[in-house]
Amino acid sequence: MATLIVAFQGERGSFSEEAAYKLLGHRIRILPCETFAATFQNVANGKAQACLVPIENTLAGSVYENYDLLQSNALHIVGEVSLRIVHNLIALPGTSRKDVRQVYSHPVALAQCGRFFAQHPQIERIPFYDTAGAVKMLAERRMRGAAAIASRIAADVYHARILARHLEDHHENFTRFLLLSKTRKVSPRADKVSIVFSTRNVPGALYKCLSVFALRDIDLSKLESRPLRGKPFEYFFYVDFLGNIKEERCRNALAHLGEVTNFLRVLGCYESARK
Amino acid sequence: MATLIVAFQGERGSFSEEAAYKLLGHRIRILPCETFAATFQNVANGKAQACLVPIENTLAGSVYENYDLLQSNALHIVGEVSLRIVHNLIALPGTSRKDVRQVYSHPVALAQCGRFFAQHPQIERIPFYDTAGAVKMLAERRMRGAAAIASRIAADVYHARILARHLEDHHENFTRFLLLSKTRKVSPRADKVSIVFSTRNVPGALYKCLSVFALRDIDLSKLESRPLRGKPFEYFFYVDFLGNIKEERCRNALAHLGEVTNFLRVLGCYESARK
Repeated sequence: MATLIVAFQGERGSFSEEAAYKLLGHRIRILPCETFAATFQNVANGKAQACLVPIENTLAGSVYENYDLLQSNALHIVGEVSLRIVHNLIALPGTSRKDVRQVYSHPVALAQCGRFFAQHPQIERIPFYDTAGAVKMLAERRMRGAAAIASRIAADVYHARILARHLEDHHENFTRFLLLSKTRKVSPRADKVSIVFSTRNVPGALYKCLSVFALRDIDLSKLESRPLRGKPFEYFFYVDFLGNIKEERCRNALAHLGEVTNFLRVLGCYESARK
Repeated sequence: MATLIVAFQGERGSFSEEAAYKLLGHRIRILPCETFAATFQNVANGKAQACLVPIENTLAGSVYENYDLLQSNALHIVGEVSLRIVHNLIALPGTSRKDVRQVYSHPVALAQCGRFFAQHPQIERIPFYDTAGAVKMLAERRMRGAAAIASRIAADVYHARILARHLEDHHENFTRFLLLSKTRKVSPRADKVSIVFSTRNVPGALYKCLSVFALRDIDLSKLESRPLRGKPFEYFFYVDFLGNIKEERCRNALAHLGEVTNFLRVLGCYESARK
């Protein structure tokens, strides 16, 4: 069997790469992409068989851009994985903790390590476009006296050292990633369904939509609203519910939902992430 | 009557400043703040009587950070305003359109002007921390051959010139701002209520919550979910509905909602923005 090629956004050593190994093991080939749009595109054009994109972080919330890309691309969700985000202080060999004067990382990562910076007021925070990209820059420019905040595997990839682990303020910091593919396939173990719909603009519209699940005792695990482009303050709703689309009650719920929505698409049916 | 002092995030000339004038007229004093957290803080500590913060953009979605700050601060929503976001190409006097080689702006603004950059591939996009701040930098450093993308009033504030208007790809680009105050006051014209609640973790919990509105024919205008810190994949729900908390059906709906939620807070009752 040919090696699976998996696209993700960011430099080598990103949290997405770590999540890909967690979900699929190390026998994959990876394809780092500059943007989320390019990540989706590389699956659509066949350069990769799948991509793994972050969709939700327990502290920062949903990754809106990827919700929008799910909607504007024809890819199917075929799996998910939840990764604990551990922020590490990483520097080149020869730089010790007391040498560090600047720390580079993505603004979200810097914000998630507030306690560390409060304890080290002499250290300057410098926003950078990417966590792993900051480690890459340290390595390329042979920067001493500087460090980056990034994933464990970024240290491996760029031959750097971890000076401190668990800089994150909140340990309950998880990111949920979706595995997307051009081909729709539903595993017999699939126990979660993701859909997107838009409601008619009438009172109680969302309530009617949710009734199709509540009346059949189907659990929702997520509900997210996104603005409809060109229609200010109207929304798409993204819903995850527990079940398999081959079950009769789920088929009935989706048929019923079709009656009360303007638009409905099943994004995928897949095995939910083990906690 | 003393002049109202209104805090907002960003440099002078920001879209928030433009929104403040639209909602409150020009007879206010403004207090620019570095972060959203400082903006809230300056109202809490009395340095400003109110603040105006963006909560939702029709293209980019909700401003999560401000939803979280609403929850962690004790301020009340006392008004809202919706501003059409018009992106202008702004440069110092003496720089013409054909001289422009670099354009500085906030990444979201750069992303919203994709067509302009596609038509002008020779122009380099440079991400900057703030739209108005980019105009300020051009002025401070006397930069020629460069421009910024920012609000109309940023050009006034920094004595710069508008080289082109309406660079935004989508004209249906509106941002909704909330006016927040330490004092709770409900205008007789108030016709909108914002609340936040968390549900019990049982099947159909959200459906039961929405039923308190649907059963009383109360219209929802917004539903937003935010992760609960420390409880991965559990959520707070932010709901806006049309009504006044002094109306009996609204009082009843909120009492009923209290029965089926773990936590419930009324964030404010205010006059909705004219479209």
